[in-house]
Formats: sequence, C-alpha cells, structure tokens
Amino acid sequence: MHDATASLDDFYAVIPAGGVGSRLWPLSRAEAPKFLHDLTGSGKTLLQSTVDRLAPLAGEGRTMVVTGRAHRSAVESQVEGLSDANIVLEADPRDSTVAIALAAAILKRREPDVIVGSFAADHVINDERGFRRCVGEAVAAARAGHIATIGITPTEPAVGFGYICADGPAEIDGAPSARKVDSFVEKPTLDVAQQYVASGDYLWNAGMFIARADVLIDELRKSEPELTDQIEELAAVWDEPEQRGPAVDRIWPQLKKIAIDYSVAEPAAERGRLVVVPGDFDWDDVGDFSAVAKLHNQGRNDRLAILGDGGTVLADSSAGVVISQSKRIISLVGVKDIVVVDTPDALLVTTTEQAQRVKQVVDAIRRSGNSDVL
Amino acid sequence: MHDATASLDDFYAVIPAGGVGSRLWPLSRAEAPKFLHDLTGSGKTLLQSTVDRLAPLAGEGRTMVVTGRAHRSAVESQVEGLSDANIVLEADPRDSTVAIALAAAILKRREPDVIVGSFAADHVINDERGFRRCVGEAVAAARAGHIATIGITPTEPAVGFGYICADGPAEIDGAPSARKVDSFVEKPTLDVAQQYVASGDYLWNAGMFIARADVLIDELRKSEPELTDQIEELAAVWDEPEQRGPAVDRIWPQLKKIAIDYSVAEPAAERGRLVVVPGDFDWDDVGDFSAVAKLHNQGRNDRLAILGDGGTVLADSSAGVVISQSKRIISLVGVKDIVVVDTPDALLVTTTEQAQRVKQVVDAIRRSGNSDVL
Repeated sequence: MHDATASLDDFYAVIPAGGVGSRLWPLSRAEAPKFLHDLTGSGKTLLQSTVDRLAPLAGEGRTMVVTGRAHRSAVESQVEGLSDANIVLEADPRDSTVAIALAAAILKRREPDVIVGSFAADHVINDERGFRRCVGEAVAAARAGHIATIGITPTEPAVGFGYICADGPAEIDGAPSARKVDSFVEKPTLDVAQQYVASGDYLWNAGMFIARADVLIDELRKSEPELTDQIEELAAVWDEPEQRGPAVDRIWPQLKKIAIDYSVAEPAAERGRLVVVPGDFDWDDVGDFSAVAKLHNQGRNDRLAILGDGGTVLADSSAGVVISQSKRIISLVGVKDIVVVDTPDALLVTTTEQAQRVKQVVDAIRRSGNSDVL
Repeated sequence: MHDATASLDDFYAVIPAGGVGSRLWPLSRAEAPKFLHDLTGSGKTLLQSTVDRLAPLAGEGRTMVVTGRAHRSAVESQVEGLSDANIVLEADPRDSTVAIALAAAILKRREPDVIVGSFAADHVINDERGFRRCVGEAVAAARAGHIATIGITPTEPAVGFGYICADGPAEIDGAPSARKVDSFVEKPTLDVAQQYVASGDYLWNAGMFIARADVLIDELRKSEPELTDQIEELAAVWDEPEQRGPAVDRIWPQLKKIAIDYSVAEPAAERGRLVVVPGDFDWDDVGDFSAVAKLHNQGRNDRLAILGDGGTVLADSSAGVVISQSKRIISLVGVKDIVVVDTPDALLVTTTEQAQRVKQVVDAIRRSGNSDVL
C-alpha cells in the first residue's frame, strides 16, 4: 500500500490545453486561448500555474501537455523544460476524450502501470496543499482499480457547472474521504442548484479524472470501441517519428468528438467504477470576466481590478475589471461593475453581471464575417 | 429701413472657433477641438455647419473665422474658399472679447458701417429658417444702434447655461420680437432654473451678439479702455503684412483674457444698450457626450448612437453613444446609456448621466503627466 503523502512515482499528470474560452473574448481567442493568459495577476499564466501545481505530485519530467499544433511554440515558451515526449499536438481539436485517452494510451505503452491524472490547463486553485491531498487520495483509489474524480465542495448554488452526486463511502485504503459516485448531472437551474448545495451530496464537476491508464482505456472501450481502437492505433506509432505523421493524417479526421464525461465518466459511474474525492480547496474555472474580477478582488466588491501592462488606467469607477493590452490611456468615469477589455484589434465593454453573454457576441461576430478577431 | 427678410448686405458673420471642449475628451482635444468634428452625424463638422448656416445671411466672402494658429490648416481645409482676409489667427487663446472685438475692429477699418454678428463655431441649430429670422431682427436692432443678442427660449430648466432676463418690448423697426434686456444671470441651480422657465422672461444665453462694429468697440471701451486700445492698435496694422507680425508679438501677450459677456454684454445691458431677440429655434451647445447622444437619437432614448467611420460596432446595448476613431471591433454587451469614445491613443468609458464629469478626468490626466493625449 502506498502512503498518500509520499511521492507518487507511478503518477503522470496530463494537461489538456484546449478550448478558446469564448466568454473571455477578446482577451482569449483562437490564437491565444485562455490558458496562455495570466488572468489572476499572479505573474504566471493559467497553464504555468497548472504545471507548477502538478510538479510536486508528478515529479520532474512527468507532466504531459496536450494542445493544438498552433499553440506549440507558445506552450513550449511558457513551460520550461517540456520535452518533445511530453507534448502531444492535436491536428485539430477533437474534444476531451481524444485529448485524455490518447495521452493515456501513449503513456500506457511507455509505462504499463502508469496512473494518469488529467487537469484542465485553465482552472485556478490557490490552496495547493488541499489540492495535493485530494490528488493523493485519488491516486490511491486509482491504484485500487477505480476511476477517481475530484469533486469540488460547492460554495454557492452555481448554475454554470455540472454536479457529481456522491453516494456512500468508497472504503479505499489511502483514500479515506473517497465516496462512491451515484451519477453525473448537467448544469442545474438555480432552484435545483440550491437543493444540491443544501443536500451536501453534490459536488462541482471540475473535470479532474485520475485512473490507471489501462483502466481508463478499458472503460472507454466499453462505450466507444471504435474510437478506442483508433486511439490505440495512434498511440502504437506515436513514439515512432516516421510512422506518427502518416497515422495522424489517416486516423485523426475520423476521431469522434466527445467529452470524456460522456464517454468514460458517466458510463463508468453507472457500472460502479467511479469514485469521487471531495475537494474543499478553492477552485474556479474562470468562466467569464466576472470570475476574473472576483479572483482579482479577492472578495472585495469595491475595487476595480486592473490587468495587463498596456496602458494607463484612470478610473473613478468601483468594482469590475479592466484588461489593457494596448498602450492607450483608459479612462472610466462613474461606471460601476464594468468590464473593459482593450486589445489592439477589438474592444469589449460589458458588466460583470452580463459577462456570461460575451459568448453570444462572439457568435454574432462570427456571423458578421469578422472572424479574424476571434 | 431694411426689410429683415432681405439680404443683409451690411452684415458680416464672425465665428470664434476656439475652446477645446474638455467634456468631449478624448474626441475633442487641443489639436482637434470640438468645432472640427462632426458630432451630429450630418457629414459636416460643427464649424462647417456654422459656416453654411450663416452663408445665406452674410453672403459670399463675408464670414470671418477667428481661431488658433494651430488650427489654421484644419479650418482652411474644412471651409472652402476662406480667404486669408477672412481668417484671424490667434497667437494664443485670449478668450472671447479679444476674438470678437479684434474681428470687429478689423472689419470696421475695412467697412466703417459694418454690422458684425458673432456665433460660436461649435453649436448645433437645425431650424435654419427660425435662426435666420432671428438674425434678421437682430441685424435690424443693430442698425438702430443697439447691441443685440439672440436668447434661446428654454425647453427645459437647464443648469448648464447662463440666462438672459428679458424686459418689455424694445420697439425697434424690423425687430418686432426684440425685447429690452434686464440683466444677464449666471448658471442657476435647478430650483432657480425652474422658476426662470416658468416665468417666461428668461432665455438661454447662447453667446450670439450682433452689433455695428463701431458700437461694439465703443461699448467695450467704456469697460475695458486699455484692452480696446490694444485691439485697435492690432486692427490698424492687421492688413499690413509687414507690420502685423511685430505688432502681434508685442501686443498679444498683454491682451486681457475676459469673456465678452463681462466686457460688453453685461455692462451694456446695465446701460440699457442691449436688446434680445427670443429664438424659438432648436439650439444645443453640445456640451458633453450626453448631448451628442441626444442629438443623434432625436429624442429616442432606446437607440444607441454610433459616430465615426472607424471600426465595426456590435452592440446589444440600448441608448448611449459610441464614437469610433480606431479600426477596431467594438462590442458592447448589456450596457445601457453607455458612452464609449475610442480613439487611437485614449479610450473613455462613461454613461450619459455621468458625461458632465469628463472634464474632471481631463484635469486628472493633466495632473498625471499624460497631457500628450489632451
């Protein structure tokens, strides 16, 4: 039996770094998605913070980043010492099942007993100790053959997240707080979310999955046999420089786009293979500019958050956030809870309350034929 | 006796084109003040509209523009056919008395019986017929030896304007609606403004003064003899190319800065020399972005006004105004009554309600050492 606090020498961190983050446009965009930005003012980008958070758990050289070809140089310049073996480049985005299962399949061939844990590149967690404790328990559960997820204890009845309904104790050595998973549920209405939070049995689905690579692939095979074959075929030649390219050209366009929640997590939960470790640490998926403002203001609603080293911001306005990427003077007069994102080719003005709706604007811009700024 | 509707062949229009319009920053600024901009979406700048409005009254070649040296080329490119004789360049701004009285003194030497009418370069009037009728009456009053002003019948208890308190009928041939002036009063509080509007005797002071040039200079001499001498000394050599420069260098720095309201209008009113023609035409001094929005929306409060041929504006926001001078996409999401002014080196975000406070921001920018954007 492993001690959850000891180094996890069979653990490998996988970071799917994809997703544009449309609700963070025009900061986040196809060429420079959310994970490449410092959205917390920490001086590190979300990707860098994710890598640094996982380093003490995975150990040196045991973090793999899965990202789009277009982001290779940005990712390599942000993540020091990332070897070619630890960067998986996607020909085009194929959703989270391909990203995570391909990484698992590649790592399984290199190291048959490896435990993989996947963590999104663009989430924020400050309580790293709490996070490490949970990952330690999740790895212990994975060693015992389970697929483990970490569910975040809700701090409010959020309607923007899916929830995990937890059942009784899983009773796994080294994972004392792990619980069985009853089901995954979609984003609820506010009423339902309030009931979830009150019940104490519902946790936010933060998309963190930890499992033996072979268990993950086996579970995937049960629901998506063809996709699994394709992924294993790719993995078989991934480390053969001359064969990888042709295999990608041939197989990639056929890969099914499906979220890992649907291909693995939900079916595995139904089969009783999933356990959840409740996480009491802070967590935020930085879903919109309202979240950016909140993260910066650390709970103080009377402060304007200013990000970016661009221009000079002169504001008598309280709350909200200004992100400045141009070298201009930005002046705000008497606007409360405002969101101003000033980039060289696009300007967004909204409020923290309306920030969720930015995605609709992005759709409107696409329809208007101005996709070059997206 | 002249017929007020006939051509006014003794009339000369003077347009003082000065004043930065700080409340319209960052659109209006030292290098490109308010009068050089199209703030109504008419396709003409405020200066051009002013010139065009006066052309049917003054006749060809009888409009003089008084402006700063820095604006010479902008003014000449905007006003077609403006001769050197019709542009008076100020070495630096010396307030309205110098601008108007110098023009009057120059014109008096060229044409002793000339009647001058001064009209700010940056006001908006749409009812040109109503305007012409009033100027016709004012010129008739000026011919009779009065100093005439046109006071605007208030449509609301505005606190941003000074008022003219009108007395009984002036009984002047050709100026049937002219009234004696009791006094000029400063910008009132809302309470007082409401009383003014209710009384029917108070008119907005729109800074329009019409008088024989010699009468204007004589009235100025009574209150500002030294300044009058200096202005006449300048006027005496103005049309002598070799003497003008040295005279300006010597005299200009000594010229007193005083508004014509204090140097001529108020003292002349006390001496019973002033009459007012009530103007029922629309009039706006476009004092802030709220006025810009109102002028564009023509009373409809549910519409977002978009000015400038810069970028693409995508907005689901109602009311307010966007002025775009950069080639960027501007996206507004769920912000009401917003004011966004997007220029290459400065961005302003405020609301129509707070637009008056922009002047304070300009002061703050000056203090912050960023005067290059002012």
